[in-house]
Amino acid sequence: MQSWRERLYVIIFQSDTDAGRRFDKMLLLIIMASLLVVIIDSVESIHRDYAGLFAWIEWGFTLVFALEYLLRLYCSPKPLRYAFSFYGLIDLLAIVPGILAIYYSDAQYLMIVRVLRMLRIFRVLKLNRYLKQANYLLSALRGSRQKIIVFLLSVSTLVTVFGTLMYVVEGPEHGFTSIPKGIYWAIVTLTTVGFGDIVPKTPLGQVLSSMVMITGYSIIAVPTGIFTAELANAMRGEQQKHPCPECRKDNHEAAAAFCSRCGSALFNKRE
Amino acid sequence: MQSWRERLYVIIFQSDTDAGRRFDKMLLLIIMASLLVVIIDSVESIHRDYAGLFAWIEWGFTLVFALEYLLRLYCSPKPLRYAFSFYGLIDLLAIVPGILAIYYSDAQYLMIVRVLRMLRIFRVLKLNRYLKQANYLLSALRGSRQKIIVFLLSVSTLVTVFGTLMYVVEGPEHGFTSIPKGIYWAIVTLTTVGFGDIVPKTPLGQVLSSMVMITGYSIIAVPTGIFTAELANAMRGEQQKHPCPECRKDNHEAAAAFCSRCGSALFNKRE
Amino acid sequence: MQSWRERLYVIIFQSDTDAGRRFDKMLLLIIMASLLVVIIDSVESIHRDYAGLFAWIEWGFTLVFALEYLLRLYCSPKPLRYAFSFYGLIDLLAIVPGILAIYYSDAQYLMIVRVLRMLRIFRVLKLNRYLKQANYLLSALRGSRQKIIVFLLSVSTLVTVFGTLMYVVEGPEHGFTSIPKGIYWAIVTLTTVGFGDIVPKTPLGQVLSSMVMITGYSIIAVPTGIFTAELANAMRGEQQKHPCPECRKDNHEAAAAFCSRCGSALFNKRE
Amino acid sequence: MQSWRERLYVIIFQSDTDAGRRFDKMLLLIIMASLLVVIIDSVESIHRDYAGLFAWIEWGFTLVFALEYLLRLYCSPKPLRYAFSFYGLIDLLAIVPGILAIYYSDAQYLMIVRVLRMLRIFRVLKLNRYLKQANYLLSALRGSRQKIIVFLLSVSTLVTVFGTLMYVVEGPEHGFTSIPKGIYWAIVTLTTVGFGDIVPKTPLGQVLSSMVMITGYSIIAVPTGIFTAELANAMRGEQQKHPCPECRKDNHEAAAAFCSRCGSALFNKRE
Repeated sequence: MQSWRERLYVIIFQSDTDAGRRFDKMLLLIIMASLLVVIIDSVESIHRDYAGLFAWIEWGFTLVFALEYLLRLYCSPKPLRYAFSFYGLIDLLAIVPGILAIYYSDAQYLMIVRVLRMLRIFRVLKLNRYLKQANYLLSALRGSRQKIIVFLLSVSTLVTVFGTLMYVVEGPEHGFTSIPKGIYWAIVTLTTVGFGDIVPKTPLGQVLSSMVMITGYSIIAVPTGIFTAELANAMRGEQQKHPCPECRKDNHEAAAAFCSRCGSALFNKRE
Repeated sequence: MQSWRERLYVIIFQSDTDAGRRFDKMLLLIIMASLLVVIIDSVESIHRDYAGLFAWIEWGFTLVFALEYLLRLYCSPKPLRYAFSFYGLIDLLAIVPGILAIYYSDAQYLMIVRVLRMLRIFRVLKLNRYLKQANYLLSALRGSRQKIIVFLLSVSTLVTVFGTLMYVVEGPEHGFTSIPKGIYWAIVTLTTVGFGDIVPKTPLGQVLSSMVMITGYSIIAVPTGIFTAELANAMRGEQQKHPCPECRKDNHEAAAAFCSRCGSALFNKRE
Repeated sequence: MQSWRERLYVIIFQSDTDAGRRFDKMLLLIIMASLLVVIIDSVESIHRDYAGLFAWIEWGFTLVFALEYLLRLYCSPKPLRYAFSFYGLIDLLAIVPGILAIYYSDAQYLMIVRVLRMLRIFRVLKLNRYLKQANYLLSALRGSRQKIIVFLLSVSTLVTVFGTLMYVVEGPEHGFTSIPKGIYWAIVTLTTVGFGDIVPKTPLGQVLSSMVMITGYSIIAVPTGIFTAELANAMRGEQQKHPCPECRKDNHEAAAAFCSRCGSALFNKRE
Repeated sequence: MQSWRERLYVIIFQSDTDAGRRFDKMLLLIIMASLLVVIIDSVESIHRDYAGLFAWIEWGFTLVFALEYLLRLYCSPKPLRYAFSFYGLIDLLAIVPGILAIYYSDAQYLMIVRVLRMLRIFRVLKLNRYLKQANYLLSALRGSRQKIIVFLLSVSTLVTVFGTLMYVVEGPEHGFTSIPKGIYWAIVTLTTVGFGDIVPKTPLGQVLSSMVMITGYSIIAVPTGIFTAELANAMRGEQQKHPCPECRKDNHEAAAAFCSRCGSALFNKRE
């Protein structure tokens, strides 16, 4: 019995056996199918005709995910630790809206239930589990975090200053009804999105806009530049971080056998 | 006779002789001219006046391409293999709409025929054949494929999550009529295109938009960063991937004659 | 007494002690809170209901900043030098609008006072003081300044030429009412912002626009490319710029102990 | 006399003496002032009030540039070669519109003359002369030309294919009135400009648009990536291109003294 539970644990929680990988892939497909149903159901014209059918399908998915959740709780060696882990909570969140939909299905609370059902979208975050390939990118992201925070702070400052200036220059009669709106406009413009729902009308406002745009255009890939430099580092292999036995120099190329400063062997020679 | 067919084969299928290059260039010009005719013919005011003329020109191009296709079939040593190859099928697709236009030229099916004629645009894909220079770029693309897929998956997740959130927050009365529409908006915004046909109206929607825009702005050149790193690698020349006979070190510079770690010769010495 | 003043100086002006850091963080929080009040107060619906409350809060912030300013003047060893330094003037500018608001509070001058109050936004510039991490980015910016100026001049030329051409081609009836407007449009388009408030209507105008867009798209990350190259340099550590005593070779790797060309020691040998 | 003319030649044509530099700077200022006058004069409200004044200023600039042109012809050792050089023709173009404005000043041809006056904008191209710093960027551009052409061809193909598809899918009733219009839309979208004057309305059109946008977003900095790699090369110093006297290996690092393959000295040793 114990062994059966353990085998189940390996299949459900781990992904280094064939059965485990197959389970993960199937689960992924079911998650994506349930997402697709939510997305399609939101189209008004389809919802009108097939609301009942979709409710049944919804119900089926909730059942499947509930079963999966119970199985995970059952076969996990430490069920409580799983239940309160990040993925355990997300697994729970994937079931709750479906169950809530039974009790609060009258028209009045429909909107709220729909909001809760949207939480099912978080199932998609489970995808992360399958993306081992993302490690390179993540480690580069981690290495460039500090510089990117500095960059985002500078952008925030820029956006606040320009948003306020535009509010003062253009004023409410040209759509800049408040400073937050001005800041929103500055973000839309600096990021080169440019919806066009709020545009400067006065000459001074257009000069200021031009400055925002050229600034945004010039710094557009700075975070990427930082990120790329880190990625190149990660791909090139890390530097050896162990000190030279002679001159204590710290960093050496990944493949270095001898210290580049004093020439003494970094490791015991092989002969 | 056989030799005459072989000479034709060299001219039509290969491009390392003068005649072959001249044939390819001429064909390219004809393809582009036929494309231009399709494009110009689509302008309503021109079509009204010169519909007859364009039909005749169309007819001429179809004849030329049909002749070329038959010649290719005739001189190819393995006609069937050509006919079912990628380019063989495209060559066929370039003729079909012109021929179909004869039988189904009455007003009712005009639209459909026009759709078929559009397939002629695929002739442009033949251009690839002439772009040997593109190899560098393609090999860099191939090398960075995995990381770019991870990136595209992350973007898809982001876009789905934000599209759903915006649908919930803004709702149908502000243009977000369904989740697919919300996802479309999220793509328009994240890619910094920003058409402005759907824009957030509520404060919370504008805060969410700002997050989407800043995210899109920050990661805008990540695929390019990945791609550039690979391109730099490709341009620098690939590393030698064969192990050192002494110390088994795997990667060596392209021009290395000796192992950079233990100094033993990688290949038989030249003396 | 003198020692008490000195201790205050260390806390207020420096940030290498625990107390100094705590003071700086608290001040930062107060500055951001006062900014937030200005921003929220600018929303018409909120201002209508809570104008009185916000006036009081404003007043409190002005008092706090005035107190801080006087303390800085008091404990600074050279008060005049501080008063006329960049940050001294900004600290003063943070107080002035609040004080002016008392005397000119009648409805007629309200707008002007509001403009002055906007200057408080410059307090945010104090943030710079806390961003020691920004040094890397700034030094990279400094190194790439010349190339970026050349880039900005080229962009200005492009924008002027295309803005004028579009004014001539499209004319006032399609929104291009003057050359400055045309230049504004060219900036909006070249930077890929694309508000859509002015769009080309004539075929020739659309061809020209396409050229502007493709140009803007192609050069979008050039300043970043320049900047990234410099940043990579800055991160790799700077090259030694002192000449080899033997062969006068100028640049050496940061960690080089011997000239890479002639092998003579760059510095006095360590033995 | 001859010597006087030669001295003038040095001042006007060269910029390595103090007087030459001062002349170039002054000329640059005059050119920019004349441009500013053209730009400001195009604003309708200003033109109404000061048309006469601007005409006089225009006249003055034309005189100054004519004088400069004659001086250049006079002091140049080979006047004809100058007259037909690129800059000689531009210098002439800067004068012509001003002179034409005298004879054709009646209301009817006013528009045409204004067009001709716009050619004065080409004076700005003279700026290139002063930008020796641009050489780095230009040499990097030249090195990456071939790859960028391949990139632009791929983009053209993409834009043609997607523009045609959108014309077929969306049709004239949603603004896609012809294939050229569809191509224009595809350029606006692929370059992430997104004016919003033409937007997809059908679900299929929005799916296609999403593909165009994500493609454009993914390849946005490819030309820059190519360009940056070349620029980094240019800044790092070029590789030595002379063959090793022993093994004939072609490329060596800029600072290499010995062949990296066979170890023989590349140059005569200095001792």
